[in-house]
Amino acid sequence: MQRTSFETMNCSIAQCLEVVGEWWSMLILRDIFLGVTRFEDLCQRLGISRNVLTDRLDHLVGHGVIERQAYQDHPVRYDYRLTEKGRDLWPVLVAMREWGDRYAAPDGPRVEMVHRVCDHKAHMVPTCSECGGVLEARNVKAVPGPADSGAFPGADLRHPRSSVPSA
Amino acid sequence: MQRTSFETMNCSIAQCLEVVGEWWSMLILRDIFLGVTRFEDLCQRLGISRNVLTDRLDHLVGHGVIERQAYQDHPVRYDYRLTEKGRDLWPVLVAMREWGDRYAAPDGPRVEMVHRVCDHKAHMVPTCSECGGVLEARNVKAVPGPADSGAFPGADLRHPRSSVPSA
Repeated sequence: MQRTSFETMNCSIAQCLEVVGEWWSMLILRDIFLGVTRFEDLCQRLGISRNVLTDRLDHLVGHGVIERQAYQDHPVRYDYRLTEKGRDLWPVLVAMREWGDRYAAPDGPRVEMVHRVCDHKAHMVPTCSECGGVLEARNVKAVPGPADSGAFPGADLRHPRSSVPSA
Repeated sequence: MQRTSFETMNCSIAQCLEVVGEWWSMLILRDIFLGVTRFEDLCQRLGISRNVLTDRLDHLVGHGVIERQAYQDHPVRYDYRLTEKGRDLWPVLVAMREWGDRYAAPDGPRVEMVHRVCDHKAHMVPTCSECGGVLEARNVKAVPGPADSGAFPGADLRHPRSSVPSA
């Protein structure tokens, strides 16, 4: 399978795609977040070939997003557990799920999320780390960070009727 | 290019991947969010072939995530603009960017986000729509929603040492 590697792109979204951008990876992580941690269970639930699942798990282990923990010695068998780096992908999964619930779930969500702190079914609201207000595309602006290499779009690429830069 | 279609999967994450799961789609959306809205500019910034860019733009237009707006008549030329459905993908992009900034940006972020409301550089904090508290993988639980079709993992798939279900 040919693909472009995003590894050398100086972009954090590309770096995230490098790790989880393969078609199956987010669904494997979804299931691991749901508590499905064993190869056979993942294989069966996802309807994925053993070869592809092995590849994807190796890739995720290689990037430190999940790790193998033996739960049996003879023969050795593993659970796949999220690392901290993997658990930190949770907002990506939740944001994807909520978008899918909004636009592609005519019969309602398949899975809902209960916030244990307040015990209510909850949605994710993106808020500002500084003032606590709601963050949304139209009330933020993007500015070049310390690692900007001149690829931040200049005025020449922002046409008069363009959206406000916000990603 | 062969791929599995996620279209028939009863899962909102799969539905989101069906729309934006192609390798380039999130990077195209990233640039459109940044105000880069024209074919030639996208082509040049992304270093992507014209054919692939055309394919991806058609796919995103077909799913109602972006739309074409003519900015010139002879010959006709288009800007690509986010629809509301497309703007609602913003939390996915932000969550991916923040993860990449944390784990794969040794020289610091390339792009930072300023919250116009408080005028500070901000990170996204996922909070609860009901109580306003912080939402994180370890303080939520997943429960079957109205469209659950029995694929929600049962006790048989949640092994004793598994993580708390949370995606």
